[in-house]
Amino acid sequence: MYLPSKIIVREVGPRDGLQAESCFVETSRKVDLINRLWECGLKMIESTSFVSPQAIPQLQDAEAVIAGINRPPGSTVSALVGNARGVERALKAGVDEVQVVISASEAHNRRNVKMSIEESLRQLEQAAEKAWSSGLVIRAAIATAFGCPFEGRITYSRIQEMTKALQAMGIKQITLADTAGLGNPLQVYSLVNSFRDDFPELEVALHFHDTRGLGLANSLAGLQAGVTVLEASVGGMGGCPFIPQATGNIATEDLVFMCESMDIATGVDLDRLLETAKWLEEVLGHALPGRLLQLQRTGKVCNC
Amino acid sequence: MYLPSKIIVREVGPRDGLQAESCFVETSRKVDLINRLWECGLKMIESTSFVSPQAIPQLQDAEAVIAGINRPPGSTVSALVGNARGVERALKAGVDEVQVVISASEAHNRRNVKMSIEESLRQLEQAAEKAWSSGLVIRAAIATAFGCPFEGRITYSRIQEMTKALQAMGIKQITLADTAGLGNPLQVYSLVNSFRDDFPELEVALHFHDTRGLGLANSLAGLQAGVTVLEASVGGMGGCPFIPQATGNIATEDLVFMCESMDIATGVDLDRLLETAKWLEEVLGHALPGRLLQLQRTGKVCNC
Repeated sequence: MYLPSKIIVREVGPRDGLQAESCFVETSRKVDLINRLWECGLKMIESTSFVSPQAIPQLQDAEAVIAGINRPPGSTVSALVGNARGVERALKAGVDEVQVVISASEAHNRRNVKMSIEESLRQLEQAAEKAWSSGLVIRAAIATAFGCPFEGRITYSRIQEMTKALQAMGIKQITLADTAGLGNPLQVYSLVNSFRDDFPELEVALHFHDTRGLGLANSLAGLQAGVTVLEASVGGMGGCPFIPQATGNIATEDLVFMCESMDIATGVDLDRLLETAKWLEEVLGHALPGRLLQLQRTGKVCNC
Repeated sequence: MYLPSKIIVREVGPRDGLQAESCFVETSRKVDLINRLWECGLKMIESTSFVSPQAIPQLQDAEAVIAGINRPPGSTVSALVGNARGVERALKAGVDEVQVVISASEAHNRRNVKMSIEESLRQLEQAAEKAWSSGLVIRAAIATAFGCPFEGRITYSRIQEMTKALQAMGIKQITLADTAGLGNPLQVYSLVNSFRDDFPELEVALHFHDTRGLGLANSLAGLQAGVTVLEASVGGMGGCPFIPQATGNIATEDLVFMCESMDIATGVDLDRLLETAKWLEEVLGHALPGRLLQLQRTGKVCNC
């Protein structure tokens, strides 16, 4: 079984997780969360989102968050942006990198950003120009790459076209995102292999939601296909706050546990990360769905 | 990615699941559960346990359960037994197959069956003689094969020795069981490959608990190593009934979903199985941890 010897875990909880919380988390708590995550050894954190406060009120304090957090040596402070205006805000706030998102599904893209894919691509082109002219790294996520709840299966040619368009904007890091948790391990392995064959000059990252319980199996398939950047959210944050079992990202600590148990180095202190996840549950006032968190709550280790 | 084209899902919920329930489930409900599982297309069901009613009062109605259930064509009614006396009872009740368990860990074996491994082997030898002389198929599970909460890592030579002892009793089907959910995918892949190389004449099955969330990833690794018999429990039943998130077997419907989504035929009707798992939650009076069950409760399909 081929597996890489080390990977980068890209933490997206402060963005993908917190934006799904029903309550606004105080800025000082967000800053505290990110600083604690650095201390766990995480090096890349998608820290917030520079989008309209009307669209995502939970992250309306993006500037204050970036201003408040520590910047340890070797860290990459990333933020989601939707357009050139977002890039400007992110640049002014002092992020290292911006992330844009476009959906492989027309129906999902319209729902997500209220634009057609073509309109999105035009907007991202302006965002990319602004980023490059300012010296900011820009990376792109292709949402619903493994299936769409509205359109169903996404063809590989759609992924190819979209990647070529993003590549033409100078983007070198592409994240294939299983937004709705519809992917399966064989599909992940096969898509990543095709993608890496066709775009050897691009770095591919993976982003899984655990909607149907396949998040870690899909991550395993991605690792076997040679992916070395995986996104995850501390505690598995991202589901509906009223139903803790719901459908967040894979939990960072569960991914780290799986990798480290197979001797894949992540650079992350698992015990400290679990403590951070438990602290986060207190901050949010509800349980998070991460599996190691659940185990610590029950204390069970044996079913004999 | 090598994967088999079809597998057998061996349902263990009526035994491994129900024995972990704090309340006694009425015999007629147990019978109903097993009959519903046959109707889902499952062909092998570990239906109960012929052990001391003092040890496992939840399954004290073993004879009545076997007497009550349907026996569709092609079905295998299996039951757990601990010794020759259990084989006698199972034989009289009319099962097709008995399953014995021995732990690879001395400490776990003493805890589980209050005997040393050596004493267990002697007892299983008598059980096997009784089974063979009566024309019953006997299969064996090696518990804690992927690690023990008391002894830690289990060496492969221990598994080899134990397998040779079981093989000497005429046993041809061995289940490697991750009783405490301590295994990882690389370990599963590697152990199964070694096992199949060393014992090509034996059928190997896998049994995972989802204690640390790796149950499906471990199953995937087992499939990649060529295993075609996987055990699972409807709804993921088997955890502590007071904490539904706790550590049962992998959920049968989640395993079936993963396999079918990769075009591995299971012969199981997933919709019907999900209905059965939901019905079982009502019977038990509490939620079960299966991931597709959780999704149906929340109704979420998209995190955009």
